[in-house]
Amino acid sequence: MKTVYFDNAATTQIREEVIASMLEVMNGSYGNPSSSHSFGRSSKSLVESCRKSIASFFNVTASEIIFTSGGTEADNLVLRSAVRDLGVKHIVTSKIEHHAVLHTLDQLEKEHPLKISFVKVDDRGTIDYEQLESLLKGEEKILVSLMHVNNEIGNLLDIEHVANLCKANNVLFHTDAVQAIGHYQLDLQKIPVDFLAASAHKFHGPKGVGFAFIRKNTGLKPLIFGGEQERGLRAGTESVHNIVGIASALKIAYNNLEKEATYIKGLKQYFIENLLKAIPQVKFNGLSANMEKSTYTLVNICLPVDPKKTTLLLFQLDLKGIACSKGSACQSGTSQGSHVLAEILNDEDLEKPSIRFSFSVYNTKDEIDYVVEVLKDLLET
Amino acid sequence: MKTVYFDNAATTQIREEVIASMLEVMNGSYGNPSSSHSFGRSSKSLVESCRKSIASFFNVTASEIIFTSGGTEADNLVLRSAVRDLGVKHIVTSKIEHHAVLHTLDQLEKEHPLKISFVKVDDRGTIDYEQLESLLKGEEKILVSLMHVNNEIGNLLDIEHVANLCKANNVLFHTDAVQAIGHYQLDLQKIPVDFLAASAHKFHGPKGVGFAFIRKNTGLKPLIFGGEQERGLRAGTESVHNIVGIASALKIAYNNLEKEATYIKGLKQYFIENLLKAIPQVKFNGLSANMEKSTYTLVNICLPVDPKKTTLLLFQLDLKGIACSKGSACQSGTSQGSHVLAEILNDEDLEKPSIRFSFSVYNTKDEIDYVVEVLKDLLET
Repeated sequence: MKTVYFDNAATTQIREEVIASMLEVMNGSYGNPSSSHSFGRSSKSLVESCRKSIASFFNVTASEIIFTSGGTEADNLVLRSAVRDLGVKHIVTSKIEHHAVLHTLDQLEKEHPLKISFVKVDDRGTIDYEQLESLLKGEEKILVSLMHVNNEIGNLLDIEHVANLCKANNVLFHTDAVQAIGHYQLDLQKIPVDFLAASAHKFHGPKGVGFAFIRKNTGLKPLIFGGEQERGLRAGTESVHNIVGIASALKIAYNNLEKEATYIKGLKQYFIENLLKAIPQVKFNGLSANMEKSTYTLVNICLPVDPKKTTLLLFQLDLKGIACSKGSACQSGTSQGSHVLAEILNDEDLEKPSIRFSFSVYNTKDEIDYVVEVLKDLLET
Repeated sequence: MKTVYFDNAATTQIREEVIASMLEVMNGSYGNPSSSHSFGRSSKSLVESCRKSIASFFNVTASEIIFTSGGTEADNLVLRSAVRDLGVKHIVTSKIEHHAVLHTLDQLEKEHPLKISFVKVDDRGTIDYEQLESLLKGEEKILVSLMHVNNEIGNLLDIEHVANLCKANNVLFHTDAVQAIGHYQLDLQKIPVDFLAASAHKFHGPKGVGFAFIRKNTGLKPLIFGGEQERGLRAGTESVHNIVGIASALKIAYNNLEKEATYIKGLKQYFIENLLKAIPQVKFNGLSANMEKSTYTLVNICLPVDPKKTTLLLFQLDLKGIACSKGSACQSGTSQGSHVLAEILNDEDLEKPSIRFSFSVYNTKDEIDYVVEVLKDLLET
């Protein structure tokens, strides 16, 4: 059966070169980076050269990159320590953040005296930047947590503007950049982000590794305690092969960014144009049809279908070998709908099937032709 | 140069078959286990079959196995939630536990009203079981955290006795079993442990993956919040290749346990005998020379050398290609000495070089001959 993988915002295929780099480490470098003998030093050297390589792409120092088991752990590390150790009493976020942020805040609210404010988003998912600014004026210590690229609707945050707003108001700024890293360049010397979370498997790296960027001298403390790994910020023996994998994937991503971004953007444009021809009544959720204000990697559509047919439609797409998502992958296994769409869509549209299609360099226009055709057929029957 | 890797308690070489199983997943199964389409279901099915396989070796149900990024995270998960969510007010542990336990407890003590009692250990590192029993009699909710196999001196806890004591006193029991899993069989239906931490890279699996055994209905909650992965107990996209790696490594370990344990035990016995012949004044730390009361995988020796020569000696061993450890790997990069040896040795012996040699199935008697010869030479010069 033909299969089409259009769920690259959920996870991506690991690049061959990344697998090769990991394989080399697994076969040849099994020392524990904390061991002082030659086997250990060899692994330590691998980890540190990966850290340096990653740091270079963001124009930061290696010591500001802390390896974690993924984006979710990085978000948890930052948010928990900000509240526990940095004296943050007020967190400003939005209702369309990833659950790694929202559920962590739910928990922190139970454990600590903490005010959480949700900045308004309009029916396109755009942050109300003026209201955001007004929320930064309090006396208490504030942290803003807003994601760089929304994982469901693709909206791009004006991250430079938000970072500067935060800096001007002496407010900490954390961004879940899981959907952005590897797809967008970020110069963190120019953009005063304090904390950032990234995940390898969103840019053709391995699952189970990510990093937190933690700006120097912020005073952050660990989420996971034990050994002195990661300069005392994250205990546990380093997953050396995974760390080599994330560094390799990031390097390939940024070294080929312009070419690959142009290619993927072309796919998205082609998908939108062809879908509009085939199904003129289709709606695009968030800003995902706006090529400037949303990521080039995904589009989220609302189909003009009887709500009763929603489940059947997704089932039929799967039968046709098409992998796409009704929301974020983290939710799709559950019976709950998307909290992001619930926030921005009217009741009528919310009942219709909304589907996220997300692209990578491994996709082709032929695949788009197939998916558009299948969608058209399914809607006509 | 000849190299001898005798630091298998720090980390182990990944088995070829384990690498092969991980490679297959990385090449072929890149779906996100949380995605409901065929790519996702295929990955989900891999993760769940690994969980089932692991559970079977401990005679528990699959839902009691929660994958983590390693042993340290598993320890943190259990201890933090026990204090925060289960109402534990008193933790009974020992001063020779791993830092993943001790440093986590240091932190929890800062955050919560918590009494921590350290059960006495004698100069061989043996737990005072009578005192332990007396510590379980309080009114408040108690959790015992004692490691199954000490990572530095190899002492075996009488885990069945401790688990039964805890059960009889209605006390929770957590064990860091990182040095035991894959090396000792544990029937968790017979031994009423409530929580257990394990790590793949200690039994020829990949670094960056482990699991917590969490007995059903204990009410434990996550350390890392976000998506609903791991039945809501551990958020973050599963490291599918690493999970396949840990399951594969565990299966091989337990399917070959008797044969391999006999072989490694033979190496340890041979090392002890030959070392005693070559250096009659050598001392063995903890119970590591007792073949019944310590793990067959390691021995920890105290050398009759002028304390001033300690650093030089370790340096010379490294120059001779011999990888061993002065304490746990997690500490060896730091200038601090072993907290375990500090607890059990007298001042005089504490100043002498103590070295841990730890063995695996990949080691040989020839390597032992070489190491004993090098040690003898170094001591004579």
